[in-house]
This record gives sequence, structure tokens and C-alpha cells, in this order.
Amino acid sequence: MAEKVTIATVARRARVSRQTVSNVLNAPHMVREETRERVREAISALGYRANQAARQMRTGRSRLIAVRIEPTRDGVNGSVLDRFLHGLTEAAEAAGYRVMLYTAPDPRAEIDAYDSLLGAYDLDAFVLTGTEYGDARTAWLTERDVPFVTFGRPWDNPAETAPQGRTAVPARHPWVDVNGADGVAQATRRLLDTGHRRIGFVGWPAGSGVGDDRRSGWHDTLLTAGLDPTGLDRAAPDGFAQGEAAARDLLASAEPPTAIVCASDSLALGALQAVGAPGGWPAGPGQRPEVAVTGFDDTPVAQAIGLTSVSQPLAQAAACCVDLLADVLDGSRRGGAAGHRRSDPASSGPGQVLLRPSLVVRQSG
Amino acid sequence: MAEKVTIATVARRARVSRQTVSNVLNAPHMVREETRERVREAISALGYRANQAARQMRTGRSRLIAVRIEPTRDGVNGSVLDRFLHGLTEAAEAAGYRVMLYTAPDPRAEIDAYDSLLGAYDLDAFVLTGTEYGDARTAWLTERDVPFVTFGRPWDNPAETAPQGRTAVPARHPWVDVNGADGVAQATRRLLDTGHRRIGFVGWPAGSGVGDDRRSGWHDTLLTAGLDPTGLDRAAPDGFAQGEAAARDLLASAEPPTAIVCASDSLALGALQAVGAPGGWPAGPGQRPEVAVTGFDDTPVAQAIGLTSVSQPLAQAAACCVDLLADVLDGSRRGGAAGHRRSDPASSGPGQVLLRPSLVVRQSG
Repeated sequence: MAEKVTIATVARRARVSRQTVSNVLNAPHMVREETRERVREAISALGYRANQAARQMRTGRSRLIAVRIEPTRDGVNGSVLDRFLHGLTEAAEAAGYRVMLYTAPDPRAEIDAYDSLLGAYDLDAFVLTGTEYGDARTAWLTERDVPFVTFGRPWDNPAETAPQGRTAVPARHPWVDVNGADGVAQATRRLLDTGHRRIGFVGWPAGSGVGDDRRSGWHDTLLTAGLDPTGLDRAAPDGFAQGEAAARDLLASAEPPTAIVCASDSLALGALQAVGAPGGWPAGPGQRPEVAVTGFDDTPVAQAIGLTSVSQPLAQAAACCVDLLADVLDGSRRGGAAGHRRSDPASSGPGQVLLRPSLVVRQSG
Repeated sequence: MAEKVTIATVARRARVSRQTVSNVLNAPHMVREETRERVREAISALGYRANQAARQMRTGRSRLIAVRIEPTRDGVNGSVLDRFLHGLTEAAEAAGYRVMLYTAPDPRAEIDAYDSLLGAYDLDAFVLTGTEYGDARTAWLTERDVPFVTFGRPWDNPAETAPQGRTAVPARHPWVDVNGADGVAQATRRLLDTGHRRIGFVGWPAGSGVGDDRRSGWHDTLLTAGLDPTGLDRAAPDGFAQGEAAARDLLASAEPPTAIVCASDSLALGALQAVGAPGGWPAGPGQRPEVAVTGFDDTPVAQAIGLTSVSQPLAQAAACCVDLLADVLDGSRRGGAAGHRRSDPASSGPGQVLLRPSLVVRQSG
């Protein structure tokens, strides 16, 4: 090809403005399907290669967002963040962004990864998952004015209970989360409704925002029903064997529970083993394990073995994250997150979306 | 900061050459851990931000590789490619590359995605998953000299049976695959060893490279054992309900099988339902379902319910993909894939790695 093909050449052939060609390349969602097709045909026919590096120097925008991919853990719960990642990639593409991955074994290493990524790529933003108390990552990014959204609340200073308590670290960044306490409360209330009075809980050790939130859903629901949670609570690190041991400990108590609510499907699988329904049970119509068990996250394993579990709206959460980022990056509302905020009564403020999970009832409880 | 911080400033502070700083940024695996740390400390202390866009224009290299993320399917088998993605991201990082994601509902759309990605980013290479007969994607990339590796063999013209048959499409690109026929043969042989003589197969409809390969492992093993596979083969699209229907059909035949080998864990879960062991069974020591069932992929669901299944070495496959890409991009052997090739007798040639899966025996068969 002798003549250099430029955006102007493409625009001429597709009979559109240069701005429209630029939009097809940078923000395809802004361009009508039909026009987009015509421009893409012209790009293809002319063999045009936009030079991202050159363009980036002009626009200062890479249209790249970075998200951490977790090391695969026990394979049961890991699927939750995988499903979130699928949703995020699709929502990002629809909004004209691409997702770049990185790994980090712990929050300190993750901050090092930010530093290295920002040094090497002109990233537009980060999506953080798994927020924790006093999250050093959000503080680091905030200090440096790097745009980000978290899938998970800031646990230090939730918007709901704002300033009084604390003076420092105003964690007013955009976030999307699923109301874990509400999910566990739904599971607990259903067990109450089906006649259970001694309902145990197996959750993670105190000190994680997500874990403490889920535990509170069980605890508060029992109190509200006039029941005493004392002696019915067990803490265990996440995992099948840990869940089994904790459930066995509960069942060995003087007044064992008739139902066990678990903070994850991994723990619940272990609990099912402890109650004598290993990996399922003879599931004739209406047959149930003697001690009811519920999980959290509605993983494929829960679906396969008939475990009642709490389902997070992960695709919606991912779409909300992208909408909030687009709000920050493009400085404009594009219907999405704003739409969630308006239509969803659980939302808690501008740039902050709290979604409600749903209970999926199966044979286990 | 008044003075502009450059690579030279960083080099001076870290007492290394500018080339070493550049290597830390572009090819960290080439730099000794201790030196890398010193350079990173200098970068951090000086607040140096490498401008990737500017650097890219100099080096013509983005150190970005792109891989497609699949839409979440039934959640059982999808986890295989998720696990591959985790391994790929980690192996890529170790080699100084980042992974960018894209989605595409079908091969045609995937080629459009290549076009759009190459137009928007100076990608170094693609990792393709799920190769098929006459793969249009590999042909497209080959024509345009875009570096890529496939996780999956070229099914048209496998290196093993090379040129004679065909004239066109010499699919001599780097690939990594897992020997599915071998995995299914391992499952079938074990059933033969434990006394089964009528062993059925539930696999995907003929016409997919992966599916046909897995079926051949069952078929050829029966023939080798002097057994007739006639009437014992059922085809079904992947899925729980499909597996159940196909297994019921097998069991309703005049001479039903005593064991069913399945091409996926999804199909196997359905088959377990059909043989009366829904989602597991009362798994006392030595207890087994009446009709043995085996799956493929060793998903978390298989682990949870005690399904015997074939396990793919996914982390190793991902690491091999990165090694092969690094061979192409850096033009140098760095031990990894070369190591695999040398040590693994199943390997089939330069740039092509065929890995052996392993059978994980559990209660189901």
C-alpha cells in the first residue's frame, strides 16, 4: 500500500466525519450499529491500523481498565470472581473499554502492582475486588488521583453510618456491593419459616468486612425473632474440611442445631458432610438432610448437589462497576448506574450501589 | 517535582545501566531479583512514570497479549478455561507480559475482534482457545503475520499425520494441547480393569475436534480389548439434562452398559442422575453407584460429589503457551517450553506441545 491510510481516508470511504471514525475506534457504543458497520467495513477494506500509541498520546486515554485475577483457591468459591470477571469484560467492551489482568498474592503486593502497571501502561482505571477494613489499596489510589471503583464496600467508613465515628480516611470512592447480611438473613428467615428454632452459623473468623457482614445477617435475624444465638456460632477459615470440622463441633454441643447457615458454599459442602449428607443425598421428592444446611454464592457446585444458597447478581454488579467508572472517566451519566440507583431502593447514594442478593431454595434446607 | 525524572535518573540512583532499568520495565524476568528490587525502589522513590505510549513508539512492543474470555455457560465446564486464564495471567506476568481480555460469541465475531483490537492496541500476540476443524481464526492471523499460540491443536493438519492428505492450510503455528483421547482411554481402561465389559460413551455430536478426539479414546480402547462398541455410543450437546437423556437412552437398550464414560463433567452429572445417583450418593467406604460413571475436566463439581474424572494440567498448559509465545516474540529459547518438549515424550515437535492428562479416581467409577 503506497498511500498512507489515515482516519480521513476511512471517513471519506465510509461517508462519515472523522469524529465518527474516531468514535467507532474509541467509543463504539456512541455510534449507531449501521454506521459502525460501514466504518468497520471501510477500515477493513483499506487495511487501516489505528496506532493506539500515537492516539493515546493525543487523547491521554488508553481505554484500558485493570482488574486483579485471584489465584485459584479451592475451586468452589473462586468461581464467583470469575463470573464477575466475565460480566466485567462484557460490560466494559460495550462501553468501549478493554480489561487488563494482573495478579497479586496480597494487598501490599497489589499496591506494588498498581505502581508497576501505572509505570508501564497509561491505564484509565482500576476495578478492585475484595475490600477489607482500612483498605490500604483504596487509600493509595485515592492519594494519587487514580480513578477506580471497588466491587465491595469501604468497610471503614460506610456511607450509611458516615463521619461521626472517625476523622481520617474519608472513603468516598465509587463502589458496588452486594448486601451479604441481607442474603444470610433471607436464608435464616426461611429456616425460621419452615419451623427451625435452633439455627447455627458457620462463618469466617471475625475481622473481615464481608465475613462480619454475613454473620450479622444470621445474628440479627435470630435476635429479631426473639431467639438467643449464644453457643450457635462457629468460626473457620474458608474450606471444605474447615466447614466440616466446625459443623461437627456444633452438632456435638449439648443442644445441637437443626439447621446450619454457612457463609460460603465451601463451608456448606463441609457441613453437609458433617450432617451425613456427603455431596448430596438420595434426593427423592421432598427428601431433605436431617439437619438443614445453606450456603452462600450459589456456585455451580451448589446447583449440582441441590444446596440452598444465596445468589449474588454478579453480572449486574459488574455492569454497575463499569457504569460508575464511565461516570468518572467520561464525566457523563449514561443511564446505567444512574438507572440502577434510581430503580433500586437498596442503593445508598451517588456513585455507590448496594445490590440485593436472592435466595435459591433447593433440597438442602 | 520540578526536574523531570527519566530512565537515566532512575539508573543513576539504582547504580545500574539505563538498559537494566529498561529491562526491569520491559522484561523483568531478564533481571536478577536483587537488582530488580533496587531499580523498583529507585522508581518508587523518584516517582518515575514510564510512559508506555512513548516507549511503545520506540520499541514497537506493547508487551500485551490478548485472550478471549468465554461467556459463562452452565458453570460446570466453564471453569476449565477460567483456570487456564489464571495460569496464563500468572505465567505471562512472570515473563513480563500482561493479559488483555476480549469477548466474542462465535469465530466470525472473534476475527472481527482481532481486527478491532489490532486497530486499537499494538498487541504483541493472541492466545486462542477452543480450536476447531478448518479454524478460520488461525488462518486469518497467519495471513496477517500476527503472532499467536493456540491452546488446542489445529484439527485440520495435525503434525502427526502431516502433509500427504491435504495441500492447503499448512497449520504450522505454535500450539499446546492436552491429549483428550488418552484421558478417555485411561478412564475406559480403568473400567475394564475393574471388570466392566459393556462400557457406554456419552459425548458431543461428531464434528468437533475435541469431541471426536475424546470419543476415539473410548472407541479404540474397546477395540483393543477385543470388545464391540456398537450400540454403546450416544451423542448429545453439552449439558446436564442432555447427559441425563443420553444416559437414560443407553440404559433403556436391550443390553444396557454397566459403566458410562462421558466427554465432560456436565454430561457425567446428568448420567449420574440417570443411573440413580443424583448429585452423589451415600458414599460410605467402598460404596459406588450401580452403574459406574466417569467425567472429563475434573471440575470443582466433580471434586465435591466424588465423580471420577480426567484432569487437564491447565497451569502447565498455560505456562507452555507463554513459553511458546516468548520463543516467537523474543526469538530466544528460555527453558520453559523447550524444557517441556525435551522432558515430555508426548510432545510432537518444535513449538507444539501435547500434554498428558491424568485420571482422578473417586467413588463414581
